[in-house]
Amino acid sequence: SSGRPAATGALERAMDELLHRAVPAMPAYELREKTPAPAENQCADFVSFYCSLAETTERAELLGRLARGFGVDHGQVAEQSAGVLQLRQQPREAAVLLQAEDRLRYALVPRYRSLFHHISKLDGGVRFLVQLRADLLEAQALKLVEGPHVREMNGVLKNMLSEWFSSGFLKLERVTWHSPCEVLQKISESEAVHPVKTWMDMKRRVGPYRRCYFFSHCSTPGEPLIVLHVALTSEISSSIQAIIVKECPLSETEEQNRITTAIFYSISLTQQGLQGVELGTFLIKRVVKELQKEFPHLGTFSSLSPIPGFTKWLLGLLKSKAKEHGRSELFTDSECKEISEITGGPVHETLKAFLSSSEWVKSERLVRALQAPLMRLCAWYLYGEKHRGYALNPVANFHLQNGAVMWRINWMADVSLRGITGSCSLMVNYRYFLDQTAANSTAYLGSKNIKASEQVLSLVAQFQKNSKL
Amino acid sequence: SSGRPAATGALERAMDELLHRAVPAMPAYELREKTPAPAENQCADFVSFYCSLAETTERAELLGRLARGFGVDHGQVAEQSAGVLQLRQQPREAAVLLQAEDRLRYALVPRYRSLFHHISKLDGGVRFLVQLRADLLEAQALKLVEGPHVREMNGVLKNMLSEWFSSGFLKLERVTWHSPCEVLQKISESEAVHPVKTWMDMKRRVGPYRRCYFFSHCSTPGEPLIVLHVALTSEISSSIQAIIVKECPLSETEEQNRITTAIFYSISLTQQGLQGVELGTFLIKRVVKELQKEFPHLGTFSSLSPIPGFTKWLLGLLKSKAKEHGRSELFTDSECKEISEITGGPVHETLKAFLSSSEWVKSERLVRALQAPLMRLCAWYLYGEKHRGYALNPVANFHLQNGAVMWRINWMADVSLRGITGSCSLMVNYRYFLDQTAANSTAYLGSKNIKASEQVLSLVAQFQKNSKL
Amino acid sequence: SSGRPAATGALERAMDELLHRAVPAMPAYELREKTPAPAENQCADFVSFYCSLAETTERAELLGRLARGFGVDHGQVAEQSAGVLQLRQQPREAAVLLQAEDRLRYALVPRYRSLFHHISKLDGGVRFLVQLRADLLEAQALKLVEGPHVREMNGVLKNMLSEWFSSGFLKLERVTWHSPCEVLQKISESEAVHPVKTWMDMKRRVGPYRRCYFFSHCSTPGEPLIVLHVALTSEISSSIQAIIVKECPLSETEEQNRITTAIFYSISLTQQGLQGVELGTFLIKRVVKELQKEFPHLGTFSSLSPIPGFTKWLLGLLKSKAKEHGRSELFTDSECKEISEITGGPVHETLKAFLSSSEWVKSERLVRALQAPLMRLCAWYLYGEKHRGYALNPVANFHLQNGAVMWRINWMADVSLRGITGSCSLMVNYRYFLDQTAANSTAYLGSKNIKASEQVLSLVAQFQKNSKL
Amino acid sequence: SSGRPAATGALERAMDELLHRAVPAMPAYELREKTPAPAENQCADFVSFYCSLAETTERAELLGRLARGFGVDHGQVAEQSAGVLQLRQQPREAAVLLQAEDRLRYALVPRYRSLFHHISKLDGGVRFLVQLRADLLEAQALKLVEGPHVREMNGVLKNMLSEWFSSGFLKLERVTWHSPCEVLQKISESEAVHPVKTWMDMKRRVGPYRRCYFFSHCSTPGEPLIVLHVALTSEISSSIQAIIVKECPLSETEEQNRITTAIFYSISLTQQGLQGVELGTFLIKRVVKELQKEFPHLGTFSSLSPIPGFTKWLLGLLKSKAKEHGRSELFTDSECKEISEITGGPVHETLKAFLSSSEWVKSERLVRALQAPLMRLCAWYLYGEKHRGYALNPVANFHLQNGAVMWRINWMADVSLRGITGSCSLMVNYRYFLDQTAANSTAYLGSKNIKASEQVLSLVAQFQKNSKL
Repeated sequence: SSGRPAATGALERAMDELLHRAVPAMPAYELREKTPAPAENQCADFVSFYCSLAETTERAELLGRLARGFGVDHGQVAEQSAGVLQLRQQPREAAVLLQAEDRLRYALVPRYRSLFHHISKLDGGVRFLVQLRADLLEAQALKLVEGPHVREMNGVLKNMLSEWFSSGFLKLERVTWHSPCEVLQKISESEAVHPVKTWMDMKRRVGPYRRCYFFSHCSTPGEPLIVLHVALTSEISSSIQAIIVKECPLSETEEQNRITTAIFYSISLTQQGLQGVELGTFLIKRVVKELQKEFPHLGTFSSLSPIPGFTKWLLGLLKSKAKEHGRSELFTDSECKEISEITGGPVHETLKAFLSSSEWVKSERLVRALQAPLMRLCAWYLYGEKHRGYALNPVANFHLQNGAVMWRINWMADVSLRGITGSCSLMVNYRYFLDQTAANSTAYLGSKNIKASEQVLSLVAQFQKNSKL
Repeated sequence: SSGRPAATGALERAMDELLHRAVPAMPAYELREKTPAPAENQCADFVSFYCSLAETTERAELLGRLARGFGVDHGQVAEQSAGVLQLRQQPREAAVLLQAEDRLRYALVPRYRSLFHHISKLDGGVRFLVQLRADLLEAQALKLVEGPHVREMNGVLKNMLSEWFSSGFLKLERVTWHSPCEVLQKISESEAVHPVKTWMDMKRRVGPYRRCYFFSHCSTPGEPLIVLHVALTSEISSSIQAIIVKECPLSETEEQNRITTAIFYSISLTQQGLQGVELGTFLIKRVVKELQKEFPHLGTFSSLSPIPGFTKWLLGLLKSKAKEHGRSELFTDSECKEISEITGGPVHETLKAFLSSSEWVKSERLVRALQAPLMRLCAWYLYGEKHRGYALNPVANFHLQNGAVMWRINWMADVSLRGITGSCSLMVNYRYFLDQTAANSTAYLGSKNIKASEQVLSLVAQFQKNSKL
Repeated sequence: SSGRPAATGALERAMDELLHRAVPAMPAYELREKTPAPAENQCADFVSFYCSLAETTERAELLGRLARGFGVDHGQVAEQSAGVLQLRQQPREAAVLLQAEDRLRYALVPRYRSLFHHISKLDGGVRFLVQLRADLLEAQALKLVEGPHVREMNGVLKNMLSEWFSSGFLKLERVTWHSPCEVLQKISESEAVHPVKTWMDMKRRVGPYRRCYFFSHCSTPGEPLIVLHVALTSEISSSIQAIIVKECPLSETEEQNRITTAIFYSISLTQQGLQGVELGTFLIKRVVKELQKEFPHLGTFSSLSPIPGFTKWLLGLLKSKAKEHGRSELFTDSECKEISEITGGPVHETLKAFLSSSEWVKSERLVRALQAPLMRLCAWYLYGEKHRGYALNPVANFHLQNGAVMWRINWMADVSLRGITGSCSLMVNYRYFLDQTAANSTAYLGSKNIKASEQVLSLVAQFQKNSKL
Repeated sequence: SSGRPAATGALERAMDELLHRAVPAMPAYELREKTPAPAENQCADFVSFYCSLAETTERAELLGRLARGFGVDHGQVAEQSAGVLQLRQQPREAAVLLQAEDRLRYALVPRYRSLFHHISKLDGGVRFLVQLRADLLEAQALKLVEGPHVREMNGVLKNMLSEWFSSGFLKLERVTWHSPCEVLQKISESEAVHPVKTWMDMKRRVGPYRRCYFFSHCSTPGEPLIVLHVALTSEISSSIQAIIVKECPLSETEEQNRITTAIFYSISLTQQGLQGVELGTFLIKRVVKELQKEFPHLGTFSSLSPIPGFTKWLLGLLKSKAKEHGRSELFTDSECKEISEITGGPVHETLKAFLSSSEWVKSERLVRALQAPLMRLCAWYLYGEKHRGYALNPVANFHLQNGAVMWRINWMADVSLRGITGSCSLMVNYRYFLDQTAANSTAYLGSKNIKASEQVLSLVAQFQKNSKL
């Protein structure tokens, strides 16, 4: 940042001044409980300064300075570590060792934690910290700020938020057409999976045969943190069209005995600052309990999930295969032949072009020809592609962590533009067998085993056979 | 505990089995975010086992075993400390040091913390932990369980509770005669300072010219954690009789312009497990704001506080002085003479006997004779008697930490049996000058300076002059 | 009232002035919809004048003057009646007749109705009218005001209140220990049947195995108009002691399968001004529905009712029989003999003395000896004694109108002082067979038939046999 | 109806059967309080039969039969009238006359009133009757049903509804963006004056500098009966465009000191069955009080009202004038000349064509030329055109009855298509001087005097001068 203009230098000086003023000093260990809280306006200064920074880069700069300049005092940590080690060599009574460890523990608390702690006590303070962490995550994603100090600060914040947004303090709220417009507008705007188009569309999603729940924190009731949409059906849905239809009877009353299955068709975090705080898993569990109370005979629980990244992954594959000539490992010979006939060119090249747009779905023949190979490829993408041993696809990873089974891959399941271009119309069900989720979750997290249905395993096997993997 | 009977041995074995089953193992540092939460019933087992222990001693035994057997792995701490120290000597890039410190931090987390953390997520879990800490404090007070491990566990619990009962999550609720009977009964029963006798007595305390507020946690609205009673007056009250009177007009409406002063005449923690969590200070601050909103012209804020321990301290003094013969340092010669005449014996001995009961208030002469010396002694007790440099009297210490001024000592301020026997009828006002409380608090906590009024300082000076201190 | 002192004359003149000012004039028929409402303060004047009258007699005087002086214009009625009759003789088109009838209808509206109508629109106006009618009923009972005009005004008020307190506007509210103290205090104070002694007594009546419901008007939620207490039992209770016991487990939770029977053990109107508005009948019906929803297997519904007036009736009987010498028609010869032996004197005279106090219950022998004859006499009192053909006893008349069956007379059912002196310890169950109440009600109201059980009919038969009726 | 097909005959027979079954018989006068209510299903039958009739004509037929067949027993009325008259000639004591009058009153109650009364006690019964009256009004308007009996039944229903929807039972509710979507959708759909286009449009109308209130009945909170929209401004608005703008800052906070004026810009009845129940007048009064509480310095209250029917009236006038040749009484000679020049033809004919569409506003010259004459004509339309002596224009009549002053006629005040075609862009302010409304209302209703401002009176005078009226 040496090349910055003078004005920026002024801003940076203002940042440093602010931080030295606002971040409370660490009292000596002995005085830690005898130090009055900093004046309210000391922390409020930080909040208003931060909010006055309109630019993402400026906020990132401030957060970087805070993380790097107001962390742990490494000298103190080393000194207390030495103290602990010495006691290890010259044992004394337990109280002495425990106190030495406590001093060390105290030395390991980064100084900015105290700032966050005091901000949390201000009116709207916790909400501010959620926003601050959202900014931090965005800045990291945009590489506006980097390094181990920032990662550490993110971790500290995440732990604090996890304590505050602990499940005991979350309130499950159901959304209906009687909920405040404010809430429905927020939910409508934050719907990330299947965007809401009109208010009637929204009314449908909170109407008969549908449920919409969210978690709020008990200190801010009515403010959605994470939202789950559920469809109540008589079988596991194989397409989103059946759930989000344009024209449908709004006043229809529910027949309880037609409802045997709950389909989780959308889950959206509305507060990005709460990423990693485990709200989703817990929300699904709570909603399952709620639904079982309302419908004692409801027995089948499954998601109908998007497969973000599939088309991108497939195009990458086609591109690399297009270079290597010779036998395709992605398609069988007869598939190659049929596709080439339809597209009028070499299978990899032409498909690459076709799948880049959504035009291909208009050709019935092509749709028919692609079904088998794309389902096979998709099964492999979900089941076989990994990141550090866990499923690469984030939605798959989420449901597998929760203990769901990879249940069924569905063709022509999302024919919206978004569905066609993002995942070639495919969607997948992750099914929750309630008596097995705990075991599945442990197996996946511990041994990285993915539990999948016959259909999925069979598709995976076909892929492997063909590609000689 | 080797000498215990076999049956107790069985209980102890059951305790150890339970703890090994219920307390989650610490995952390796690398897997700490990839380990699923323990099954709900694992933690629920601990809760139900604990609740099944009816005896205080049994609960204390279990908590002692938990504290001693499931704390920090000292070997791990030493190992990670060594790692940090080594990096200090052979500097590497920041990321390496920060990770080593994080490993050390992780090693310093006692294993039982994870148990408490998971219990907090159960329905009613936080409430259970508040009760558990109340038991722990009681067991420590009764010396049923001791030692540094238990003190450490108490500290860990206190920190967790402080996070959960942070001011941002507390809800100020006002109690009126329209509040649920449930709430009024609880508040009535938990009133520790001036016990509530009848329901009409309670109706009076929530009626005109009175306010009663409590904090509840946002997850359990309507459940009082700490309660503050306020009287709205036109001057700083010098006796509790004027506030808690038996017969008074219940339907009287408030005349706003007669209200210039708020007297905090009782503050009671209803959940003992929350001792040390700083609810009281914050409650007073919030109530001050609330009252200022309701009565913009309200300008004077003061407590009318009991002086628990004063009679006991005075009796001890009289006892020790009774042994040393010669000139009394507690009373002037003329006081000695007058008192002796009334009581008919040596001043120290006879007073000791008199003050042990409440009979003395029936003698107008004695009441008159004792006023000057007892007020002087009380001023010294409050101002001069210290524990680790801070006021010995806990109520004084509480208000001084909040930044109040020791304002006025009042004679015949509480003529109930409790008032006479506990503090010789004396009560004290701690006055809050809102623009000075922050400075006073810092001065008291930092430099142990007590801010007191002319009246108090003058009484202290008289005491010192007399006792040649 | 000619003999009254001058000061009263002044008050009376003030009353007349007020009434002429406050009671709106009747607009001509043609202008009845084109006349603006009287100014708010015109009606408010009446309200404040009325409220300023502290004495019952003064209020009664004002109401009498209103009733007599501001009723119907008999000349107008006659004139319009003549108009209608003339059309009867010289038929014209329907519209003419209908309008003549409407003019007549308009002429028949008393002028004070318009005053009441406008008062009802004031804040708290309906509540005022309820109080006014309560005063009117009391004044009539005390014979402070009499005559047909007052009876007519009472009827007009009752009809207006019936319209406003129509069942569609009543809200059923359940009282629990979580209800406002305000409500519980009101209910406690208005409990007329079995007075509430302490707050723990009240807590019991809203605790497990008990229900307490009230109707409020939708415009004043939380204000009880009429209260019903229910005990949930496993059989039809034969004594009130089992329901209102002093010491009982307060925290006991209900076992649904032990609950088969609902006992209505107290119903109290809290607003006397609503007498005759049919709230009681409707409250019982609504509570039955509510209980059936909560306890689908609940099948038995019955009251446990007091028998006010029984002792008084019996004493009257004894008195008249005491005069006629000869064979007793109230007791059999052997009963006479046994009672005389115990009381030591002629049966009628001595019993009259004994039953005037509550001492007799202390003699086990007497209690045994009186059981058979008193139950027989009580059966006759309830079943045989009539007023205009309907049951003389008002509680019996209430339940019989509702369609209940006179089910069981219970000995030693209320051993409180009130129970012994008021009804010789007897209570009665009126049982509700839900599928028969409509038919029973019609039979009772129409043909004055009382439906009674075998037990009651057999007791009645014994009475008749003995008394040769 | 003799010519109807057989099927209709069947329906009519079904109607008659239903009515004979469902409408309760009138009990004899003596038994009127001893007759049990009809079984619930008796009245419910009527409700379900009525609801099963899908066609407006069928419902009208049923209502006609009810009105004609189940009204007053004219024989009874005549008989009782004779009784009253006889007493007039042969005076007896008051009680006898009063009872005779009461019998007559009883005879004058139409039998269908009892049906309505019992329906009102059913769940949702009052709501049903509101709908039934809405149907009745519609059927009368469409001339599907006519005659004095139907008019009488309408009057009876209106009186019953007036009693139930009395102001004491109405709840003023404010609508904000936090209100349920259900409510906002209803209000949006029922907005009759300035239709709501989008949800953002609606959000604006409940946002800063706007208020939206409605009355609900206390038995059905949250259900709008009548809605009032208010704009908070700094002067009396002269155009609707300034209030209902498309793009405006939604998050703007209100500056209290800029708010001096409240403009009622829309009032809509959402339940047509409540026509004539005087909700509007009372809503305006309540809202004025509410606003004065919120803004103590708010001093100016005015409507900004549409002038429905003005264009139609004007076109009628032009048409009739077009026939009579000679000097125009509507325009001055110079106006005639100028307009003719612009329109290119005889003023009456060409204007008739122009004003029939909305094209004329595109001609700046024509807009300028028409301003003076149209404002003059409009002033006359509002002030001078009468129906039975009261203002012909219904909106004017409503505000004048409330005591408002006809304040200002505004040119180009509503340039929406609706505004141009309905009232040539004109709108009018009716201003409420709170201390004069009572007197104005009385003067208008009693003497038919219209209070108008200088501007209006001056325009009226110009019109009169020109037209030689």
